[in-house]
Amino acid sequence: MFENKQNRTELSSIGEFGLIEHIKQSVKLSQPGSLKGIGDDAAVIDNGPGRTVLTTDMLVEGVHFDLTYTPLKHLGYKAVVVNLSDLCAMNAQPRQILCAMALSNRFSLEAVEELMSGMLLACERYGVDLVGGDTCASGQGLTISVTAIGHAQEQDLVYRSGAQVNDLICVTGDIGAAYMGLQLLNREKKIFLENPGVQPELQGYDYLLERQLKPEARLDIIQRFKTWYVKPSSMIDLSDGLASDVIHLCKNSNTGCQLYEEKLPLDHLTVQLGPELGLDPTVAALNGGEDYELLFTLPLSEYEKIKDRAEVSVIGHMTDAASGYRFIDRQQNVHELKALGWDAFKS
Amino acid sequence: MFENKQNRTELSSIGEFGLIEHIKQSVKLSQPGSLKGIGDDAAVIDNGPGRTVLTTDMLVEGVHFDLTYTPLKHLGYKAVVVNLSDLCAMNAQPRQILCAMALSNRFSLEAVEELMSGMLLACERYGVDLVGGDTCASGQGLTISVTAIGHAQEQDLVYRSGAQVNDLICVTGDIGAAYMGLQLLNREKKIFLENPGVQPELQGYDYLLERQLKPEARLDIIQRFKTWYVKPSSMIDLSDGLASDVIHLCKNSNTGCQLYEEKLPLDHLTVQLGPELGLDPTVAALNGGEDYELLFTLPLSEYEKIKDRAEVSVIGHMTDAASGYRFIDRQQNVHELKALGWDAFKS
Repeated sequence: MFENKQNRTELSSIGEFGLIEHIKQSVKLSQPGSLKGIGDDAAVIDNGPGRTVLTTDMLVEGVHFDLTYTPLKHLGYKAVVVNLSDLCAMNAQPRQILCAMALSNRFSLEAVEELMSGMLLACERYGVDLVGGDTCASGQGLTISVTAIGHAQEQDLVYRSGAQVNDLICVTGDIGAAYMGLQLLNREKKIFLENPGVQPELQGYDYLLERQLKPEARLDIIQRFKTWYVKPSSMIDLSDGLASDVIHLCKNSNTGCQLYEEKLPLDHLTVQLGPELGLDPTVAALNGGEDYELLFTLPLSEYEKIKDRAEVSVIGHMTDAASGYRFIDRQQNVHELKALGWDAFKS
Repeated sequence: MFENKQNRTELSSIGEFGLIEHIKQSVKLSQPGSLKGIGDDAAVIDNGPGRTVLTTDMLVEGVHFDLTYTPLKHLGYKAVVVNLSDLCAMNAQPRQILCAMALSNRFSLEAVEELMSGMLLACERYGVDLVGGDTCASGQGLTISVTAIGHAQEQDLVYRSGAQVNDLICVTGDIGAAYMGLQLLNREKKIFLENPGVQPELQGYDYLLERQLKPEARLDIIQRFKTWYVKPSSMIDLSDGLASDVIHLCKNSNTGCQLYEEKLPLDHLTVQLGPELGLDPTVAALNGGEDYELLFTLPLSEYEKIKDRAEVSVIGHMTDAASGYRFIDRQQNVHELKALGWDAFKS
């Protein structure tokens, strides 16, 4: 798509330092703690007393994204968001990011600008500063590695390991939609490749596409936790799929779990598109991944605080470890929950 | 090389979580500030009052390294060291790293173990903790992205921008050797490819090979600065080549510079191998890069403190910006210094 642009400036014509200078000029710092951004050997921050929270995620072309249907701006946005989502899952406030990218000569300066514009849009949206990074050549394809830096007071941090038996298992938003969006995009790509004259049929599915191409981190939720006087006992973000991620909470907390199919929050488009794609919406919700919603546990005593919140669904509860990972379907049949989520080396 | 190992465990057989678990078990935390390492959505650190210093560097197979002659253990070591070197160049103490890597199915668990053993050796050598990261698949080749976290008091930080006219320009160790080592490895690779029966002639050049394959960050120097009561006015690490890097200091400090060929610290092996490879050692020193020595400036008044230090060579001085970037050769001819250093998109 970006190859069709009228202007194409080869990265080789401006060189690495030219590119860094170019990027630097589009980056503004807004966090008071961001003392030194791009342009020295390293960035310098001072986020004040408390804890610094750090995470990194790498996105590889052909593995995590397909540029035939992923706009570069969306990709840049997503590369930042998936990292901020990890900070939110610690109940930490995102503050800064570093971004390293390896670019083949297929990418022009204009393509990098598109990518950066998405990253900077995410930075603006979440109040985060881009304070450093690395740009380099790659033999083939695009690899993006973002490191996100957040901040929290010790008492606010939420780990995967704090859940107790009988805690409620809660999830924000709806799940499975990002996977439906991916399947839809793959279907249309296949049709397009077989028959380039056919226009993709994506009308009416904007929400599913957006969930896949431009996910959001639930920073709004962790801010609401404060106003609700709620602190989860454990938390993780839904990147691999509900089944895999709830098992992470269980393993780290030494518990089992029981989830109910009828409680899973599914968007109506997810439910609607399921039969068309021959895909069970529940399977998409359990194993699809990339929802970037928050999965957390709360003591039963906190139920009143969240029961009427539209953003939160209670989908089950923690059990003792010996009970295993159970999933109760709509017919009340009991299944063992298995982590079939996205696994980098098995896909 | 690693394909020859007797045991080969496919990464696909253990999956991403299996790999993370495997890595986690080989990682110990030693820094008091490393509160939460691998195993949650993010790492948690508390490095106490002062400034947090952050840098990231990405190494891409085929661009930054060639696995036909780079042992994976050395590569892991180098991937960490090049980041720690950036922290040293800020006069900051390295504390933690995060490491993301994308691996094609060419890499086995044993290969990842080799790579990790090099990373962990560097961590041990420099007193740094591996607190997090990401592992994922790649369609082709190996990409490693390390983020390093350091700590400094505000008054100890040294930027690229603090040099003044007449400041001495100093460099640690010797320069050009890493590039000579690279040329030597490339020569032997070429011979090997043309004539696989010929054994590589690398005897006696250990130092040059080590400079290329297993560089060190000059953490020792920034520790000595304290005992010498020295604080550089500006500093950068030599990654792109002396010419390119001194110009970075000049541009950031709004100065010119004058360097003297006769003052450049060259190892005798660099000088010796030059004619054999048809390569001027001075050119290797100016434009070769990857020395990971520290280039810094000091007020003239500090000269007494460093003049007898074996680790430090004074190679020139800063001038006013209008004088440009000058290089005086052994015949006292004046040349304009040009940044011909390694440039990712031009190589």
